[in-house]
Amino acid sequence: MIRHDATAPGAVPATVGADETGPRIDGARLWQSLMELAKIGATARGGVNRLALTDLDRLARDQFCRWCVQAGCTITIDRMGNIFARRSGLNNDLAPVMTGSHIDTQPTGGRFDGAYGVMAGLEVIRILNDRGYRTLRPIELAVWTNEEGSRFAPAMIGSGVFAGVFDLAHGLSRADAGGITIGEELKRIGYAGEAVVGHRPVAAFFEAHIEQGPILEAGRKTIGIVRGVQGIRWFEVTVTGQEAHAGPTPMPCRRDALVGAAAMVAAVRAAGLADQPHARATVGMFSISPNSRNVIPGTVCFTVDLRHPEPSTLEQMSARLAAELSRIATENALELLFKEIWYMPPVKFDAECVAAVEHAAKNLGFTSQDIISGAGHDAVYLSRIAPTAMIFVPCKDGISHNETEDASPEDLAAGCAVLLAAMVERANAAQASTKRP
Amino acid sequence: MIRHDATAPGAVPATVGADETGPRIDGARLWQSLMELAKIGATARGGVNRLALTDLDRLARDQFCRWCVQAGCTITIDRMGNIFARRSGLNNDLAPVMTGSHIDTQPTGGRFDGAYGVMAGLEVIRILNDRGYRTLRPIELAVWTNEEGSRFAPAMIGSGVFAGVFDLAHGLSRADAGGITIGEELKRIGYAGEAVVGHRPVAAFFEAHIEQGPILEAGRKTIGIVRGVQGIRWFEVTVTGQEAHAGPTPMPCRRDALVGAAAMVAAVRAAGLADQPHARATVGMFSISPNSRNVIPGTVCFTVDLRHPEPSTLEQMSARLAAELSRIATENALELLFKEIWYMPPVKFDAECVAAVEHAAKNLGFTSQDIISGAGHDAVYLSRIAPTAMIFVPCKDGISHNETEDASPEDLAAGCAVLLAAMVERANAAQASTKRP
Repeated sequence: MIRHDATAPGAVPATVGADETGPRIDGARLWQSLMELAKIGATARGGVNRLALTDLDRLARDQFCRWCVQAGCTITIDRMGNIFARRSGLNNDLAPVMTGSHIDTQPTGGRFDGAYGVMAGLEVIRILNDRGYRTLRPIELAVWTNEEGSRFAPAMIGSGVFAGVFDLAHGLSRADAGGITIGEELKRIGYAGEAVVGHRPVAAFFEAHIEQGPILEAGRKTIGIVRGVQGIRWFEVTVTGQEAHAGPTPMPCRRDALVGAAAMVAAVRAAGLADQPHARATVGMFSISPNSRNVIPGTVCFTVDLRHPEPSTLEQMSARLAAELSRIATENALELLFKEIWYMPPVKFDAECVAAVEHAAKNLGFTSQDIISGAGHDAVYLSRIAPTAMIFVPCKDGISHNETEDASPEDLAAGCAVLLAAMVERANAAQASTKRP
Repeated sequence: MIRHDATAPGAVPATVGADETGPRIDGARLWQSLMELAKIGATARGGVNRLALTDLDRLARDQFCRWCVQAGCTITIDRMGNIFARRSGLNNDLAPVMTGSHIDTQPTGGRFDGAYGVMAGLEVIRILNDRGYRTLRPIELAVWTNEEGSRFAPAMIGSGVFAGVFDLAHGLSRADAGGITIGEELKRIGYAGEAVVGHRPVAAFFEAHIEQGPILEAGRKTIGIVRGVQGIRWFEVTVTGQEAHAGPTPMPCRRDALVGAAAMVAAVRAAGLADQPHARATVGMFSISPNSRNVIPGTVCFTVDLRHPEPSTLEQMSARLAAELSRIATENALELLFKEIWYMPPVKFDAECVAAVEHAAKNLGFTSQDIISGAGHDAVYLSRIAPTAMIFVPCKDGISHNETEDASPEDLAAGCAVLLAAMVERANAAQASTKRP
């Protein structure tokens, strides 16, 4: 039972958001909001195509703002188009506890990636309203601009500028394939706000998200207590041999770039398998030239994505892989270019925030397990400036970035209940983060 | 020395085309004609871009016809745009001995592929004129339409219709990527002739060509006596796994289509290596989907090109490869689609024509070796209706279908001298082929 005693906000009972029969957030309302939002950019195959800063993104932002205003929030928009809906606390001089995610999607995205974190935050505000419950600190719900990076590279640009990872001019000047910039599009759709980006204290940040992987489903767990995010190293590899006619060129004379690159794909997989259970190693892009049926490939370009939660292990993986690819190139008389193009260090989330999630899941009686996020999220950048944690819920078959992305209303409600409890706990703590800006 | 005794044409001496100091054709004139032709569509990187039935192809055809008319030939153009330049013999009721090749090129083609066979034929006619030598049979020099297949698929369509492999309507209706047909382009450039395609007897057909492979160069031989052409089987393979996010998806859960396809590329190479020295096995086209840096590839499509001069061996190679790919797919929990899309049976060239080439090379004192053509040529289709042989000369580093394609004037002259001797031998034989139509 939630206590409505506004005079003792620090003493919220452990069962906040639930009674003996389960979570007390309104799961049906949460689901309905998700489905309503998913109509904006809905695809024939049941997904959503709502690229950042398109007219559809504007419609979704408008809908979000309407709902928040109806819920009594005040709206602030910053110059990066990040939106903040604020619910007052008992002491509005204290930094708010924030939640949020994004409402842009992949071109063939699903209904839950990002949208879930935002609608769960909305449900938190609505249920607190329903119960007339006021937290000590204000609560804020954020929508971050261009998380997906599908239209404008890089991904997570809105939260990145907010956290000081990129400067504002850089963020606004990112252009899509047609040369249109984020700044231009923000103006066009009416979301170029006036608030200075990042000058906004955050006592704690929580992000609820579908897992986008199969671990919770396989382990039959409802809540993933996200301990951190894997570090990522991205490489670009070019393998050069000798293009030649497939008919007249004897097998032993060939310098077939594809044969070498194929062995390298196997080596990348082996690099991932060598550091289980956490390592990931993926070749995601792969193209060959001249790509003609009867010509021995002369050049292959491919990407490597290596992930691990431990920086030292990730570095060892990279070094071992570089050596192995070099060996394969030499063995096949090929030239090799192996170039690191990006490194995102691993993130460890804030112990107190993670503990708040853990307590909530336990107190609410949900099955849970620790998990490391394999994907980047806005929470990664937020963790640089505020105590941060994430809550994962299972998604069907682990599939995301896909129109068939799916999650159960029960799991989504459970994650929302955990978010509510964790946020209320932190929002009632008079002592905020040491990391607080 | 060539005998000018037109009353005994059957008695041409073995040294025709050469004396003790080497070939007697005019190597400098041959080279000059090749370089002159290569100006039409010349690229900055020293190659030629002269796609079939473009304005550049018309210019090259015009130049060819001018030269042939200057050499006293009569020109016939058939409805497929194939051009025949005829030099009269002593008995014009006898079927002619024909040579020829093509003057269309790959988009980034070289100066010799095709052009050499045509210019060598022109030099044969010119040298016979210079010496006032008249063969018993007429000699014809053919230019075949759209050999390369770069603009209009399939390749070798002009010689294919001539040999009855395709019917005329099919040939004329082949369209390029923009939907323009061969028939339309032939009319536009003025090469839609009136002659019925294929109603033209051929006593023997010889085609001189650069090897397009490294064998002669590696063996330091000047002349390749082409015994036949490898059979070719083309396959299209689709490998389907499960696309998923590269971060959250643990290695053991993955159904990575690229990992499976990479193992299949290795299997294709192994299939080629298992039947040396003649087998060839190549993956030439390879594409993956969705081809995104942080997404595990869900689908890979690739092509397989298998070649061998023995039909039974080629069939065994195909069957073994199909079984091996199937095993790999099962092992990686992937779906496999393995589809044969084309089969060109191996060709054995005519024993008498090959012997004529062999004698000529030997009598002229050129180093030579037997060779199997790994590539298709117009001669493959001609061999279906006439006794046929080919003469190969080395090309630099075995490179062809490339702007850097190169060959030495000496080797090109040697091949031309062999062509002259072989053609004169067959053109003076009163008894023509049993295959003669």
